[in-house]
Amino acid sequence: MVPDKVVDEISANRQRYVEELSDFLLIPSVSTEPDHAADIRQAAIWVVNKLQKLGFHVELRETARHPVVCGHLVIDASLPTILIYGHYDVQPPDPLDEWITPPFSPSIRDGHIYARGATDNKGQCLTYLEAMEAMLSVTGRLPLNVKVLIEGEEEIGSPNLGPFLQENQEYLQTDVIAISDGSQFASGIPAITYGLRGLSYLEIQVQGPRFDLHSGTFGGVVANPIQVLAEMMTRLKNSDGTVAIPGFYDHVQELRPEERQELSDLPVDEVRVKNYLGVDQLVGEPDYSMVERQTARPTLDVNGIWGGFAGEGAKTIIPAKAGAKVSMRLVPNQRAAAINERFKSFIHSIAPSTVKIQISEMHGSDPVLIDRSQPAMEAAARAIEFGFAKKPVFIREGGSIPIVGLFKEVLDCGSILLLGWGSPDDGAHSPNERFSLEDFHRGICSAAALFYSLEESYRT
Amino acid sequence: MVPDKVVDEISANRQRYVEELSDFLLIPSVSTEPDHAADIRQAAIWVVNKLQKLGFHVELRETARHPVVCGHLVIDASLPTILIYGHYDVQPPDPLDEWITPPFSPSIRDGHIYARGATDNKGQCLTYLEAMEAMLSVTGRLPLNVKVLIEGEEEIGSPNLGPFLQENQEYLQTDVIAISDGSQFASGIPAITYGLRGLSYLEIQVQGPRFDLHSGTFGGVVANPIQVLAEMMTRLKNSDGTVAIPGFYDHVQELRPEERQELSDLPVDEVRVKNYLGVDQLVGEPDYSMVERQTARPTLDVNGIWGGFAGEGAKTIIPAKAGAKVSMRLVPNQRAAAINERFKSFIHSIAPSTVKIQISEMHGSDPVLIDRSQPAMEAAARAIEFGFAKKPVFIREGGSIPIVGLFKEVLDCGSILLLGWGSPDDGAHSPNERFSLEDFHRGICSAAALFYSLEESYRT
Repeated sequence: MVPDKVVDEISANRQRYVEELSDFLLIPSVSTEPDHAADIRQAAIWVVNKLQKLGFHVELRETARHPVVCGHLVIDASLPTILIYGHYDVQPPDPLDEWITPPFSPSIRDGHIYARGATDNKGQCLTYLEAMEAMLSVTGRLPLNVKVLIEGEEEIGSPNLGPFLQENQEYLQTDVIAISDGSQFASGIPAITYGLRGLSYLEIQVQGPRFDLHSGTFGGVVANPIQVLAEMMTRLKNSDGTVAIPGFYDHVQELRPEERQELSDLPVDEVRVKNYLGVDQLVGEPDYSMVERQTARPTLDVNGIWGGFAGEGAKTIIPAKAGAKVSMRLVPNQRAAAINERFKSFIHSIAPSTVKIQISEMHGSDPVLIDRSQPAMEAAARAIEFGFAKKPVFIREGGSIPIVGLFKEVLDCGSILLLGWGSPDDGAHSPNERFSLEDFHRGICSAAALFYSLEESYRT
Repeated sequence: MVPDKVVDEISANRQRYVEELSDFLLIPSVSTEPDHAADIRQAAIWVVNKLQKLGFHVELRETARHPVVCGHLVIDASLPTILIYGHYDVQPPDPLDEWITPPFSPSIRDGHIYARGATDNKGQCLTYLEAMEAMLSVTGRLPLNVKVLIEGEEEIGSPNLGPFLQENQEYLQTDVIAISDGSQFASGIPAITYGLRGLSYLEIQVQGPRFDLHSGTFGGVVANPIQVLAEMMTRLKNSDGTVAIPGFYDHVQELRPEERQELSDLPVDEVRVKNYLGVDQLVGEPDYSMVERQTARPTLDVNGIWGGFAGEGAKTIIPAKAGAKVSMRLVPNQRAAAINERFKSFIHSIAPSTVKIQISEMHGSDPVLIDRSQPAMEAAARAIEFGFAKKPVFIREGGSIPIVGLFKEVLDCGSILLLGWGSPDDGAHSPNERFSLEDFHRGICSAAALFYSLEESYRT
């Protein structure tokens, strides 16, 4: 499927690709922190330069916050078009003291490259660019027309990409979209993802007295915002692990029996998962397997909490304020907007009148299911088998890629390929995030193969 | 009672006393933060210099952490001895952004001096030193022998003062101890405090997975340490505001009917309290008045909580850790050591096996009741009436002064006078802590009067 000389070229340049990735990972392009605006721009320009070297027509397109890198390379108007999506922004690196080597000083050990963004998404995104470089360099052309869209707001929920897609609907028309922003099912078990959970993310602020009080003088007469918040957080879940917000499960689509069978056929090692996480026990909704709970069932987590004195030693106060960040993972056919409303109603209904509550909606996205019967799916399976020497499994993923829903709706493209090259234990969003150099190489091979297999499947 | 020329001297020097206080308040002597070790020492030396100018034999005595300032001035071996206690350390100033003027840049407005430590305890402590300066300067002597003990660890629970008192038991022998580290009952209603609540202060750490996890990948299968902590915090209290730890109320001494009558006679304005605090509603144990709940009933507060991502924006993690600081105010005859044990047993009994729990004991103190029938009480009442032109009320205080229990036990001195010059709304431990310049002046007058009234009462 892939010309031998392309494979040889990719193998010959393995070391240089790693050096390029390392260079990309040096840039602390944290999208959620305003302090990093200059780094964000630097990372965007890094991508622009790379695409320009490949001969792309490329532009840095401004948005209300972080720019989008947008480019295209037309080979032949009669060929089908592939749109490559990725993101150059990364999660914040904290807690910093848990990194063995600093998050923005890429370090190679045990066959992995360690840095924030290694797998999510700089490393995986780069596989497509290196694959195209290899094809262009030895064959002088690509098997398809290509559009590239690499954004800088994925980790903050892509707030400006919806409008951007709307405005550039025509320019972005494509036959298929390839996204590598997830992972294999497990290390060595490549996968095609056909489902994604959605996300509702909210922040709650509790205001008690108008300033911090001496707990000796006022202990016993004033509602403590931390305790009020703790109680509300407790009431969000039932004792069996289900979410207690009324109506939360109303539109949840149950798994089909065939899907449950398929998921139960996956090689899952709960003991290995527990060892990896360092926990004695897993939790969750009764009557669903671990994989089902991770990918096809909705859930709720408190992502952060704060209030009062957290420094060294003791401070005897009743704090004026406390707050928490709460997110819910959604599944078909829940809708983020409706869940946000239910969440807010519930919190307001249980909030005592002794405090003032403020709730803000952070980013959200709807869950997605992709049609598995289309030819592009089969082409992707062949490409992965070529790169990883193994047939992929078909899975749902627990995380959210808000853009997938947008692509489906705004670009009216149902042919979205979610092909993760990394491993679930790469630590995306965690300290010591990493990407296996072997997976990086396999990803580049699979990306190249995808161009040829898609071209074949569209030709026939 | 007080010679006119002493009163005139105090009036003539009002402005200079304020300048001296302002100078003392410039020193950020925060005892809980290791970074402030040098400031602590500077504040101690400030006190040493002041006492030396008065002619005291004074020493800076080292302890395992912060030094104690210790001095004496013997007038006549046949006279009784008063021991003045105070502390030169202060609470941390955070939250810093809520201060109108910076905590360590004393600022005078509306007849108050604003700074961390203004009332607690630099301002109140200084009243005794200025009173002695005035008496010495115009009469050449003091009516009593004086010992002074000013420590630097009060705000961290005086961990080294117990051993210090033990080692210096003989040197510190005294007839009466005067402490001004509380406040009047209300602004303009001076008080003598005969009861103090004790304190149990503990910290809980909850460890879940061994690092922060992506909440998309692991949401639904791993116990979230924040949620586990929130649930445990919730279970510490019953819905009626009482503490849910088994046995917590076992040794609580109920108020005598006469005390309840006395407390209910106090001029309490709940509306004014609510306005001051900025809350619509007070809370607490049923069947007890606000003043009873503040001073004579035990309670529990979460003083701080932390876990996960508290920065700007959204981070989708299940955190590895969460923690909280919890303190309980105790009343006679509860004991801090026993309550700590009950707290730990309860937490361990409700902690789920999905996480690991660690509890550390911070500082604590037992509650105190002082005999109201002794002559020194009457002398103190006369001194206050002289300084404030009003008879004092007798009250219990909600806060803890761990040293009072120590004095009683180690120095075997039951004559402890708790005479607060400040106002309960001075904001001790809060942003914008302050001390009324008028109260500062009245405090100096009352302190001088106390020397004469005690001398009279011991003479008769």
